[in-house]
Amino acid sequence: MSTPPLVTFASLWESLLPIGRVPGTGGYRRYSWTPADLDCRAWFVAAARDRQLRLDPDRNGNLWAWWDVSGSPASQAGRAIATGSHLDSVPDGGAYDGPLGVVSAFAAIDELRAGGFVPSCPIAVAAFTEEEGARFGVACLGSRLLTGAIDPGQARELRDGDGITLAGAMQAAGQDPGHIGRDEDLIAQLGCYVELHIEQGRGLADLGAAVGIAEGIWPHGRWRLDFAGRADHAGTAALADRRDPMIPYAATVLAARQAAVEHGARATIGKVIAEPGAANAVSSAVRAWLDVRAADGRTLEDTVDQILAVAGEESGANRVDMAARQESFSPEVEFDEPLADRLAAALAAQGIEAPSLPTGAGHDAGVLAARLPTAMLFVRNPTGVSHSPAEHAEDEDCAAGVTALAAVLRDLAG
Amino acid sequence: MSTPPLVTFASLWESLLPIGRVPGTGGYRRYSWTPADLDCRAWFVAAARDRQLRLDPDRNGNLWAWWDVSGSPASQAGRAIATGSHLDSVPDGGAYDGPLGVVSAFAAIDELRAGGFVPSCPIAVAAFTEEEGARFGVACLGSRLLTGAIDPGQARELRDGDGITLAGAMQAAGQDPGHIGRDEDLIAQLGCYVELHIEQGRGLADLGAAVGIAEGIWPHGRWRLDFAGRADHAGTAALADRRDPMIPYAATVLAARQAAVEHGARATIGKVIAEPGAANAVSSAVRAWLDVRAADGRTLEDTVDQILAVAGEESGANRVDMAARQESFSPEVEFDEPLADRLAAALAAQGIEAPSLPTGAGHDAGVLAARLPTAMLFVRNPTGVSHSPAEHAEDEDCAAGVTALAAVLRDLAG
Repeated sequence: MSTPPLVTFASLWESLLPIGRVPGTGGYRRYSWTPADLDCRAWFVAAARDRQLRLDPDRNGNLWAWWDVSGSPASQAGRAIATGSHLDSVPDGGAYDGPLGVVSAFAAIDELRAGGFVPSCPIAVAAFTEEEGARFGVACLGSRLLTGAIDPGQARELRDGDGITLAGAMQAAGQDPGHIGRDEDLIAQLGCYVELHIEQGRGLADLGAAVGIAEGIWPHGRWRLDFAGRADHAGTAALADRRDPMIPYAATVLAARQAAVEHGARATIGKVIAEPGAANAVSSAVRAWLDVRAADGRTLEDTVDQILAVAGEESGANRVDMAARQESFSPEVEFDEPLADRLAAALAAQGIEAPSLPTGAGHDAGVLAARLPTAMLFVRNPTGVSHSPAEHAEDEDCAAGVTALAAVLRDLAG
Repeated sequence: MSTPPLVTFASLWESLLPIGRVPGTGGYRRYSWTPADLDCRAWFVAAARDRQLRLDPDRNGNLWAWWDVSGSPASQAGRAIATGSHLDSVPDGGAYDGPLGVVSAFAAIDELRAGGFVPSCPIAVAAFTEEEGARFGVACLGSRLLTGAIDPGQARELRDGDGITLAGAMQAAGQDPGHIGRDEDLIAQLGCYVELHIEQGRGLADLGAAVGIAEGIWPHGRWRLDFAGRADHAGTAALADRRDPMIPYAATVLAARQAAVEHGARATIGKVIAEPGAANAVSSAVRAWLDVRAADGRTLEDTVDQILAVAGEESGANRVDMAARQESFSPEVEFDEPLADRLAAALAAQGIEAPSLPTGAGHDAGVLAARLPTAMLFVRNPTGVSHSPAEHAEDEDCAAGVTALAAVLRDLAG
């Protein structure tokens, strides 16, 4: 490959940009197995083919592009260096969350090849399915299936907002959902996974660094809250007769913020559905999703307990039935320390300053950490804004990310 | 007609019941100009035809079925006794709100005819379009157009949730939207309008009466509240950096309840939309609709001022932009006192006790009151629940309503 790496990054990036973009907001809706997602997958296939990488999608819908090395497969077992990220988005998400890691992986390979590098072990670029959980409600679905962190039968029955199951969505996309689940053969090939990702806070911006190395991921849980009251007429139902689920819902929103402040945690309700949703009727039900993350599991638990206590009390006071169900939980992740040290050393050898920092965001690297050494590189996000069309990284910082990832791969596969 | 009135009521009622019913909730979704609404209109046409009533839909999509009398049209000008209600529903509304008045009107005509009554002036059964405002956001749209209370050009451009205009919806249903608007020819034919409706509170239940007479309608306004913040990542965005519109929204919900309690008013938020609506993202925007009603205009204004003050303060504290826009306002309605007195006397003469009571609900009778004497009969609602699948009236009370309406029509058209 003779194209300079920055050119390959820009051309890859620009070819991906239009896919799944929402005209109104400029954000992205790339939900797994939808037409936008299939277009992203076609983009990945083309990028792999352009680089003569061997395409080998796994049984769980995750895409893998392999830079093979000579030698028997047995001699390479457990040695492959995997990198990549995901291509799906949250509703109206930004362009960088996920795609930056995949584009940077291809561009890093271009940079290594341009420098004449020949790896001593395979390098694989991965794009994991449904990292955001935006369609089927389970974050890191592809990596969870791969590692056996979710039961495949349960996963097949996950439903999207239209009632379509994961199995149905995969079938409609021409995929066989019958063989999803833990894939020991694939895991046995991998030596480690290094995911590059845009930072989702202002940590690097505050430190004045273009790239950083992740220390770990805060524990994270999602709860579905169902407030069931009774529909009624907004004009005629006496206040004392009402069983309005919107009242305890609102109290819960404020309690979540208060509890997060008190515990130094993060608590957010960003999805709420009022039924029947009429401007002139008391709601029959309000459904809401509570997202809580904290520095450790105990703090997270205390935060959630405090929020649910208020939800229960205020529901009782309004004769509303309240049920809270944990939809997902990801325990604290500490990334592999020797691997992180090796990344730091490899970057320092290139004169790249890369401070360590924690994150409150979940990643496939956090799921894979249960089965193999994983690490993450973060690229500076000047505003810290994420999961938003306003999410942004400067071109120079993206280029620094590619250079850093190439340095890491050169070291690990050298 | 020789069929006893109770049988005609039951058969009319049962033929209407399946139309637009939602399997899951048992409630109704009969939104104007949708297939369910067109089925309701076909039902009305059949009921009129079965009774040899002259069908004469007006330019605004309201249906009229006329029991004509002999004599020149000129001699009957301004003498017609109109009755009826509406067939559309709120989302997942009950079976009675609206349809009870239309079914009772046909059944009352059957009862009058079974008794050999011959009216001295025309009697008309009306079904008004989009009384609930569930599709195009303006309550009493059909009667507002008829009386000129809404500009027809503005009405044509009203849009439903899918962006379809009223003009487009009417055209799709084979109606000409080009001639909607004030219809003086029709109004000139009418002497008065008496609407029978299920009560939407527990007033009659508490008084132990099957039917009652409306005194007036509370003033009523609807405001759209737009809270515009900034989408962000639920795990990584520091609380202090957030501009989360859900926080001031929640404070506004609680402020609305508090203000209603303090002012003896009604304030409700039953419709809320969070954008982008992701479980793991801070919302970029929250849109909500505030419904406020009170015993008089001054109290309503004070209630709304108090709510919007909190909405503004809490938005400011969270660096969220807030805009409130009045979407509709219906001033206080006092029904025609001589007409109400005449109803009371006609019912008393039949031994029917019918107490007077106010209501917080808007009705086409309230809109028509600006142009002609109007009155309302209420039928007991044992639980007071309304705008809900649980809305209910006992069969005996429905029969009492038909008998009362027949007595009123016999008196007015005698």
